[in-house]
Amino acid sequence: MKRVYNFSAGPAVLPEEVLREAANEMFDYKGTGMSVMEMSHRSKPYEEIIKTAEQDLRDLLNIPDNYKVMFLQGGAHTQFAMIPMNLMKNKVADYIVTGMWAKRAYQEAQIYGTANKIASSEDKMFSYIPDCSDLPISENADYVYICENNTIYGTKFKTLPNTKGKDLVADVSSCFLSEPVDITKYAVMYGGVQKNIGPAGVVIAIVREDLITDDVLPGTPTMLKYKIHADNESMYNTPPAYGIYICGKVFKWIKKMGGLEAMKTHNEKKAAVLYDFLDGSKLFKGTVRAEDRSLMNVPFVTGSDELDAKFVKEAKAAGFENLKGHRSVGGMRASIYNAMPIEGVEALVAFMKKFEEDNS
Amino acid sequence: MKRVYNFSAGPAVLPEEVLREAANEMFDYKGTGMSVMEMSHRSKPYEEIIKTAEQDLRDLLNIPDNYKVMFLQGGAHTQFAMIPMNLMKNKVADYIVTGMWAKRAYQEAQIYGTANKIASSEDKMFSYIPDCSDLPISENADYVYICENNTIYGTKFKTLPNTKGKDLVADVSSCFLSEPVDITKYAVMYGGVQKNIGPAGVVIAIVREDLITDDVLPGTPTMLKYKIHADNESMYNTPPAYGIYICGKVFKWIKKMGGLEAMKTHNEKKAAVLYDFLDGSKLFKGTVRAEDRSLMNVPFVTGSDELDAKFVKEAKAAGFENLKGHRSVGGMRASIYNAMPIEGVEALVAFMKKFEEDNS
Repeated sequence: MKRVYNFSAGPAVLPEEVLREAANEMFDYKGTGMSVMEMSHRSKPYEEIIKTAEQDLRDLLNIPDNYKVMFLQGGAHTQFAMIPMNLMKNKVADYIVTGMWAKRAYQEAQIYGTANKIASSEDKMFSYIPDCSDLPISENADYVYICENNTIYGTKFKTLPNTKGKDLVADVSSCFLSEPVDITKYAVMYGGVQKNIGPAGVVIAIVREDLITDDVLPGTPTMLKYKIHADNESMYNTPPAYGIYICGKVFKWIKKMGGLEAMKTHNEKKAAVLYDFLDGSKLFKGTVRAEDRSLMNVPFVTGSDELDAKFVKEAKAAGFENLKGHRSVGGMRASIYNAMPIEGVEALVAFMKKFEEDNS
Repeated sequence: MKRVYNFSAGPAVLPEEVLREAANEMFDYKGTGMSVMEMSHRSKPYEEIIKTAEQDLRDLLNIPDNYKVMFLQGGAHTQFAMIPMNLMKNKVADYIVTGMWAKRAYQEAQIYGTANKIASSEDKMFSYIPDCSDLPISENADYVYICENNTIYGTKFKTLPNTKGKDLVADVSSCFLSEPVDITKYAVMYGGVQKNIGPAGVVIAIVREDLITDDVLPGTPTMLKYKIHADNESMYNTPPAYGIYICGKVFKWIKKMGGLEAMKTHNEKKAAVLYDFLDGSKLFKGTVRAEDRSLMNVPFVTGSDELDAKFVKEAKAAGFENLKGHRSVGGMRASIYNAMPIEGVEALVAFMKKFEEDNS
């Protein structure tokens, strides 16, 4: 069986040993005589799967007891509504717009109250993170919102914004579990799992307990109340059970690899291989301001649309998949999440060198 | 590897050949060098997966062109809100309450307008389907709502209600693709797939085109608008891609088995084996009025809680899993969805006979 180097921005590469285990357990999960896909979510074996997944995630992120962990559905896009519906008590929130998904979140919040765009990097195609050390935070803001790693543009907040005491809400979809974080700096941290953790269809929301109340905006659907999911430990209705099972396997894999410190080292090493090459290349160049570069998503261009297309085509033929940039920006993008081995990045750089020689 | 007979009400048994294919393709889907879990939802191979799945479903159900098919997230529970938010133009809807999920839908609708309970079978523990030939349909009702097969109680509408010209909305989660239906009798037909079609985390909604508009209730989250999903062919955001892939395999399996006519024959035969035994048994008895019995979910009792518990325990030890009734009603329930082979039902009946002999 063939395996390619898959640089997809999401859904994305998963650890091979996770896939191997999932394949082996497809017919009979640990002697239960059934697949996890076929398992009642209220059965003992499944209860153990979801509880173990939550505990492993808590261990990895060092999540304090006063934060709830919820496995939800509907993608980050559903969170764009769920956050204001649950948190906008004063109907005011401040948004830092550093890319398409932060912008979507900002637009969605306008349905529910006053959403203020307090900073943006749209002036330069979202190629940098604005200075967030002294922003005009609204006096009665219910929260300050960021998208911490911008998948499309390849930027990352290296320092969290100074929220001046307001609660921070962060979409971490594309940097989830890529390095250690201090959960206590966040009121809500959430992300779709389909980049660094598992198959599309699961969102993990980590929410500080005092924010989880019945005091939500009028008209909030029951399924969009954090409280219903927190009170029922993600089992108010049937959860996306198989996806959570795969996430659990990835948590175990990260633990085995040495946890988030080890992931950080591994990710920095991989990113350096690619960024160092880009910085020295005469053909390729990165599109992001150096200090704001993501460890996960690395966009680059040749400066020529024709050459970009040629590169993507030849790379694909050589076994490097999904290097085309997002349809909204063009160029190239290599997503190098946790499960991308360093060999993949090294092989890509060797291929880029060769391409540069052949096309200069 | 062991396989049990799994009578779970959902998530539930899947066809063995679907699981076998999924396991074989886990590492490398058809030479792409990656798992479907790792695949960009915007890639050509995935586009083919989702488009083929939709077409096969259209073929199976003979869905007319003026109906849209959407693969959504959030379970039937999210539909409980999505339906009134999208359809309640007059803010009035009529609900027929035949079980816990119909009741939940009815309660949720009250958030958005006037939901009238026009019939109910709660007086007898939802053990029958009320006469719906001449109900007091509200003059300005936007729709009439039913849960067509009641998973917990084991009842099924054998005749659709007379809606007196109003649009019919039906939750078909637990009878989806179990027999042929005439889609044109429904305005909305929807269901979670985790009973008859695939892994939890996918909802399929089949909605008549004229009902899909931007004219939704104020405050409706973007993700809860049918129009956003219909216009983007279930790809507004990342869909639950792996789940849809499994659903697609099940559609192919049903086609190969002979389509919905063949499923109906197969399901009637299986159900007859079990109901005939129950009708003749001195120990076990079915709990549903004979004419309203579901082909999919068969609840039964011994009349003694102790004996029920003993039966469930011994059945489990003998390889018959998940026969315990829903936590809200007790007793036993055998869910015998499409993928349950007749051998499973025959083996269960043989076991029940033996149990009856041993305990009388």
